[in-house]
Amino acid sequence: MKILLTNDDGIYAEGIRALYNALTDLGDITVVAPDTERSAVGHAITLSDPLRVKNVNRGGKFFGYAVTGTPADCVKIAIRAILRDRPDIVVSGINLGPNVGYSVLYSGTVSGATEGAMLGIPSIAVSLGTFEDPDYSYAAEFAKKAVLLVAGNNGLPKGTLLNVNVPAVAREQIKGVRVVKQSARAIEERFDKRQDPRRRTYYWLTGEVIGSDGQEDADLETLRRNYVTVTPIHCDMTDYGFLQLLKEWKFEL
Amino acid sequence: MKILLTNDDGIYAEGIRALYNALTDLGDITVVAPDTERSAVGHAITLSDPLRVKNVNRGGKFFGYAVTGTPADCVKIAIRAILRDRPDIVVSGINLGPNVGYSVLYSGTVSGATEGAMLGIPSIAVSLGTFEDPDYSYAAEFAKKAVLLVAGNNGLPKGTLLNVNVPAVAREQIKGVRVVKQSARAIEERFDKRQDPRRRTYYWLTGEVIGSDGQEDADLETLRRNYVTVTPIHCDMTDYGFLQLLKEWKFEL
Repeated sequence: MKILLTNDDGIYAEGIRALYNALTDLGDITVVAPDTERSAVGHAITLSDPLRVKNVNRGGKFFGYAVTGTPADCVKIAIRAILRDRPDIVVSGINLGPNVGYSVLYSGTVSGATEGAMLGIPSIAVSLGTFEDPDYSYAAEFAKKAVLLVAGNNGLPKGTLLNVNVPAVAREQIKGVRVVKQSARAIEERFDKRQDPRRRTYYWLTGEVIGSDGQEDADLETLRRNYVTVTPIHCDMTDYGFLQLLKEWKFEL
Repeated sequence: MKILLTNDDGIYAEGIRALYNALTDLGDITVVAPDTERSAVGHAITLSDPLRVKNVNRGGKFFGYAVTGTPADCVKIAIRAILRDRPDIVVSGINLGPNVGYSVLYSGTVSGATEGAMLGIPSIAVSLGTFEDPDYSYAAEFAKKAVLLVAGNNGLPKGTLLNVNVPAVAREQIKGVRVVKQSARAIEERFDKRQDPRRRTYYWLTGEVIGSDGQEDADLETLRRNYVTVTPIHCDMTDYGFLQLLKEWKFEL
């Protein structure tokens, strides 16, 4: 199996190394990841600047390419310019912090897998549900299972990826795996208004995860109850439910 | 009506001015837009840097706030920190260039409207189908009609926005308005591999719009046939069609 790894915490992050180690006996791994942290970049791509690529050797067999771009850039350039063969699967992560609810749209980790899905390659994003003291070992083990399951089921529908979130608790406290929908909201944010040393105002975004309007069966609440969540995400953002109603509206030139 | 305008071409762009002029007699307009062009930023938000806000007066009644961030940042900071009252509608654009197919995921213009939808405000993204010699006049006129239609229908479903694309042809050549789905693909890209003056390699993303796998009824092909396209886009990226099938997969801890 030919595996492409990326992430948004950067090629030197602990999470991508844990992923590398867990997947290494499944086949040939190539790591193409941002040279520095690129969190909350959404599905950004770099159009107005050139990209540079640098070889990185983190010791052991971990060899990869650091790119001066976003996770989506990394997957694009890996497939279009770096790799000789098309990968069989793209795995993005392991992200430090959960990617549930609307965070899915902001997430660089998810966008790495989204780019893979756009290019027609089965793709998985993996995130760990904590921002502090991460232990990636079980998330990496589960990522391996997910890769094998995707391979065993002959891939994923075109344009669809799996968004996996693993609770940050001890292995024996994890209750199971649930296939769930994305929740509608997850973050309540505000801006801190501050003054710099030259007395000019600046704003800093801050926020906290809140509830998700009682969506007990969606990703946020399910992860909170210590289940691994698996959500199929697709690149077609059409609201099909509303599409038919909207056709009744009287749009005129 | 209280209207919030943003875009991704920046507060000094021609497209947002055209939008401002077209909507000005509908109510109170506030412009909060990036201080420079932020194209293809996806749904990025700025977490690791502060945001600064500067008053901008472009002459006439056009007064606004330039933000050192992305379109999503602009909508967030407008609603959370700048505006006294919550807007009734968010309009993002008019973008120089179409936003159809997978471009919807890369688009800063769409992400401005997506952020509005996430915050529970009816939102519209408007793009013009050309990158050269833009004439925004009809797109601006249509944007006004769309705003009135959204207001007349009491808004949009929670988490859903309208993605509007206007063909860049003379008014009399526009054939009508079509409510359509997002197409599955729109761009074929490659990387130019070049050498800088110091003989170091760099890569530059380039590409062209191609077909969309025969999706005649979707946004790309419909816009090409000179119809205005209106696509309802939502923030829930769950692939519901595949969700039920995926529940049959044997995920295990």
